[in-house]
Amino acid sequence: MIHRLAVVGLGLLGGSVAKAARERGLAREVVAVGRRLESLAAARSERVVDRVTTDLGDGLAGADFALLATPVATAEGLMPKVWQAAADGAVITDVGSTKGPIVRSAERLAADRPLAFVGSHPMAGSERSGYGASRADLFNGALVIVTPTERTDPLALKRVSEFWEALGCRVGVMDPDEHDRAVAAVSHVPHLVAYALVEAVARLNPAFFGVAARGFKDTTRIAASDARVWREVFQSNRAALREALAAFRTSLEELERLVAEDDGERLERKLEEIRQLRNRLE
Amino acid sequence: MIHRLAVVGLGLLGGSVAKAARERGLAREVVAVGRRLESLAAARSERVVDRVTTDLGDGLAGADFALLATPVATAEGLMPKVWQAAADGAVITDVGSTKGPIVRSAERLAADRPLAFVGSHPMAGSERSGYGASRADLFNGALVIVTPTERTDPLALKRVSEFWEALGCRVGVMDPDEHDRAVAAVSHVPHLVAYALVEAVARLNPAFFGVAARGFKDTTRIAASDARVWREVFQSNRAALREALAAFRTSLEELERLVAEDDGERLERKLEEIRQLRNRLE
Repeated sequence: MIHRLAVVGLGLLGGSVAKAARERGLAREVVAVGRRLESLAAARSERVVDRVTTDLGDGLAGADFALLATPVATAEGLMPKVWQAAADGAVITDVGSTKGPIVRSAERLAADRPLAFVGSHPMAGSERSGYGASRADLFNGALVIVTPTERTDPLALKRVSEFWEALGCRVGVMDPDEHDRAVAAVSHVPHLVAYALVEAVARLNPAFFGVAARGFKDTTRIAASDARVWREVFQSNRAALREALAAFRTSLEELERLVAEDDGERLERKLEEIRQLRNRLE
Repeated sequence: MIHRLAVVGLGLLGGSVAKAARERGLAREVVAVGRRLESLAAARSERVVDRVTTDLGDGLAGADFALLATPVATAEGLMPKVWQAAADGAVITDVGSTKGPIVRSAERLAADRPLAFVGSHPMAGSERSGYGASRADLFNGALVIVTPTERTDPLALKRVSEFWEALGCRVGVMDPDEHDRAVAAVSHVPHLVAYALVEAVARLNPAFFGVAARGFKDTTRIAASDARVWREVFQSNRAALREALAAFRTSLEELERLVAEDDGERLERKLEEIRQLRNRLE
């Protein structure tokens, strides 16, 4: 049981955590810290949170559990202030799509003041964004990756894992950098590619959008995601993104070569191989 | 009203046309030509078709309307035989994803024997394939592009357009080569890219599939499509595919440069621009 839960950033993810925590009675008190007064006011009047503030220090004071739910680079930038303002003994976690930079930042800060930080990444989301899109069931059944290192306090890891489990999530554990490489491949490259697919049509001839069918809409749905969130993800995970993009390019070039080569059977075997890999996912 | 409709190829598309034609009473008699006896037998016993044959000449004899619904390069290869076997005055159309090669083939053949061919491309489909996946409502509300040229008989164009409309489709008209450039951009490149996204993950580390969330599944759903169908599409539309891939690469490189440049605001503006383009689609 959390005495005072502070949620910093009341968008899609922060709002959904606050709603789920309230619905499941996970915290005696929920305090929201945010910049947009409308979101905060809505959450307050819906009694999703007990108190709202635009002041980080005020919001973190006395909170035994703090969740950073701003866009990822914003959260990285807030870390020194969070470290200053957090209560002694507080457990801090986040929801960012990249984990290496924020975990390293926490470990640098912990050299001066020992506070417990555990990186989290809930694999749930939506191309919609903001508090208005948040839902108490967003995390239901979702996978949350937590990213402890050898310096992580085992008790804090346990509390953070139990927090996500209490919200209905399955919890997986990964090394922060391994996590960043994995999500570069299965999330960040697909997002960047989806943006490029849309832009390429506009570049060739915007009239071509007129013949786009369901396949195009599904494939580019994630290009309708929040621009601020994804700008910060791409920038925060730049190195792993570069590596995964190189692998993607190699794969695309190999397929293009097979198409050009006129060896239909080899091309078909390759497509069938990939189809089977894909079908194991569902 | 069609007297005898011949459907050549009884897979997802051919089967769906046969089912819809039967349900809507579009043809007095429906004959299916195919290679797989199970599909043909199923269609026959379900009374979706009146007669089945594995012999193209037999199937086309006496048909006043013929639909080629094999994979696209297969249909291109069948054209000389179709021309030989079709009845005088028959109207012939197809469902292939590329239109230039088959339309040019029909025009070459028409120099010797004047028969009416109109290219069609129903923008409907599924990552599932085969007669078992066919449905009477697959084309309901779908856009069908027909691709006449200046040599197309206006009466045949009218009959083919009315055929699709009777199946519940909206009909659009495009030049065959313009069609091929458009679908290269909004369909063929996205398919090739989806295959490459899946293969790149396997190339980097197959364990990364473990953290794939809904975004990855949506973006790569079309990589679960039939390998034979797509091998033929890619090969048949090779030139337009190359052009559209070049545009895609330019777009991707520009985005990658913006990520590398550390100008967050420019990157965000670009992503937001693309997001708005994408959102006009729904």
